[in-house]
Amino acid sequence: MKIYDVEGFPNPARVRIALAEKGIKNQVEFITVDVMNGEHRQAEFLAKNPDAAVPVLELNSGVTISECTAITEYIDHSFPGISLTGTTAIQRALVHMYQRKAESKVLDAVGAYFHHATDGLGPNLETNQNKAWGKQQKELALEGFKYFNQVLGETDYVAGNEFTMADITLFAGLAFADFAKVDIPAELNNLALWRNKVAQRPSIAG
Amino acid sequence: MKIYDVEGFPNPARVRIALAEKGIKNQVEFITVDVMNGEHRQAEFLAKNPDAAVPVLELNSGVTISECTAITEYIDHSFPGISLTGTTAIQRALVHMYQRKAESKVLDAVGAYFHHATDGLGPNLETNQNKAWGKQQKELALEGFKYFNQVLGETDYVAGNEFTMADITLFAGLAFADFAKVDIPAELNNLALWRNKVAQRPSIAG
Repeated sequence: MKIYDVEGFPNPARVRIALAEKGIKNQVEFITVDVMNGEHRQAEFLAKNPDAAVPVLELNSGVTISECTAITEYIDHSFPGISLTGTTAIQRALVHMYQRKAESKVLDAVGAYFHHATDGLGPNLETNQNKAWGKQQKELALEGFKYFNQVLGETDYVAGNEFTMADITLFAGLAFADFAKVDIPAELNNLALWRNKVAQRPSIAG
Repeated sequence: MKIYDVEGFPNPARVRIALAEKGIKNQVEFITVDVMNGEHRQAEFLAKNPDAAVPVLELNSGVTISECTAITEYIDHSFPGISLTGTTAIQRALVHMYQRKAESKVLDAVGAYFHHATDGLGPNLETNQNKAWGKQQKELALEGFKYFNQVLGETDYVAGNEFTMADITLFAGLAFADFAKVDIPAELNNLALWRNKVAQRPSIAG
């Protein structure tokens, strides 16, 4: 398996954590995409993901899988160990529900702020900015922090009492918020305690 | 099981098709949410889905599941019959990849155009419009149509040679495009043939 990505970018981080949780990170060849110089928008990469986004999983068969949820489904169902996507119907539903909300209300909302309302990746790459949209999405991220603080007042992890893909997405979203200077209110205690706990997992602390 | 939704709305249509594909639509109590009068933004509904969006699945236990992908995962894993989310690792990956792209590049892109750049659901509900964003998302939808036309030149259905959740999302997205008057170019033959084929399924034709 190959992963085309950029180490340290928010979405690539999600897949790297998933691989580490399954204990298979050393079975993967990581290939760096030179996003800062626009390699992700060139034909060779677009053939792997027409959305010009990292990460992309390439199987030995040549099939390419993009979208973090899809890559995580592949990893989770291909290798033994911890279940990241749930095993029962209700677990699967909760994992996918909270995962999607962690994307839309936190990670993607912060991303929209970063790419639309700040310098983002610089003028060569941020060619279609909409500052008002970015600012509105920052407000959504602030709502998202509060929402997950409430969720984490009721369960140990985002989608219940086990660590799952939903935790990975939220954790990557908060890291992106720090990077993009979107302040996470200090009074959100449940969120802070959960974040500290998750940061200590070997898949993240290394 | 109860489903809170509005018949005919794009995301509710996804779940209704999924239920019909599994042959269990008659086991569900449908409860209409009065979206046009803002019932989805009142406390009682927000307790079921803080994102103020339909559909919501409520289980007999009282647990509520929002997000169409999550609801479809629940339905697919709870009842026998056709697999809508795939059974092998690679199938699951492809279904989730194309499902997400059908959301982001078609259904949600059309939705952003409809809610931000047209009258949408009217001035009482469309209180935070960003016309430039809506227009940009319409361009993304046009790219999405072309992308799926290409995908459907290679396989019978969106995520391979079987009908899945990815087809449901794309079909609902095209119906939303018609409603929002986003023209689907007539020369996209693969897309048109696939759409005609899917429209004849009993889950849709009734």
